[in-house]
Amino acid sequence: MNAICIVGSSNSGKTTLIEKVVPILKGRGLKVLAVKHAKYFELDRRGKDSWRLFESGADVVITSKEKTAYICRFSDNLDEILDVFGNLYDIVLIEGFRSSEYPKIVLLEKEDDLIGLKNVIAVVSNTNIDFEPKFNKEDYHSIAKFILDFISSSL
Amino acid sequence: MNAICIVGSSNSGKTTLIEKVVPILKGRGLKVLAVKHAKYFELDRRGKDSWRLFESGADVVITSKEKTAYICRFSDNLDEILDVFGNLYDIVLIEGFRSSEYPKIVLLEKEDDLIGLKNVIAVVSNTNIDFEPKFNKEDYHSIAKFILDFISSSL
Repeated sequence: MNAICIVGSSNSGKTTLIEKVVPILKGRGLKVLAVKHAKYFELDRRGKDSWRLFESGADVVITSKEKTAYICRFSDNLDEILDVFGNLYDIVLIEGFRSSEYPKIVLLEKEDDLIGLKNVIAVVSNTNIDFEPKFNKEDYHSIAKFILDFISSSL
Repeated sequence: MNAICIVGSSNSGKTTLIEKVVPILKGRGLKVLAVKHAKYFELDRRGKDSWRLFESGADVVITSKEKTAYICRFSDNLDEILDVFGNLYDIVLIEGFRSSEYPKIVLLEKEDDLIGLKNVIAVVSNTNIDFEPKFNKEDYHSIAKFILDFISSSL
C-alpha cells in the first residue's frame, strides 16, 4: 500500500497541494485515491432518496453514468479504510491523520509543526527552515516527482 | 449474492418500500445494502474540499466518526457495482434497474407494468390484479418476510 499523509495546520494548503499534485500523478498513469477526514458530511439534498435509504439503516450505493458513491457505516479508522478501498489504487494521498504511522509530507509554517510527527519524508514550506528534502509550496511538479520516486523506491 | 430489484414507475413508492423494509431486515440481524440509480448527484456543498479532490482526478474517501463515503469513477454497471460492494452484505435491495436479470419485486399500478420484465418474484399493488404472491403496498412486514424466505431458499 503506497499511502502518504499530507499534514499541516488548518488552512496550510493541504487540499490545494493534493489537488495540484493529483493531475501530475494521473498524467504518469497512476490511479490515485484521496482520503479526507470530515467532522460531518452529508449527501447532496438533490439526492434526498439516498439520504432516506441511509437513514433507514442500509448502507447505500448511488450510481450514475459518470460516477458512483458508496456510503457506509465504517468509522474513521484509517487502516480499515485503506484495507477496503486502497488496494484498487497505485497511490493513496491522505489529508491529515497526523498521528498515523504512514509516511508524511508536512506543510510547515514554523519548526514547531514537526513536534510529535513520526515518519516525516519531506517538508513543504516557503520559510527558510532547515529540512531536507524541502519544497516550496507552489513547486507542485517537484513534489509530485518526489512522491513518484518515493513510491517507486518502496516497490 | 442475494440481490433483489424493486421496480415500478416513478413515484410508485420504490424508495418508501425499501425504506420501510430495511429496518425489519436489520432487526433480523441482516446487513443490507441499498443501490440507487441517479441521473446526477453531487456531494454536499459543506464538503467542498472533497468535491475539489474528486475534480482533480482522484477518487475520494471522506470519513467521519459516524460514516464513510467513497466516490469513484465506476459507471452504472450493476454487475461491477455488486462485485465490488455487494459481498459485504447479506442482502442487496436495488431500486430500479428493471432490465437487469436479478429477481424483481414489482410495484404495480396496472397489468401492463409487467410487460418485458424478467424474473418477477412478487407483485406489490393495491389493485386486484391477478398475481401470486401479491402484497398490499403498506404490508411491509409480509414483504420483508417474503424477502427473508426468498433469500433463505436461495442459500
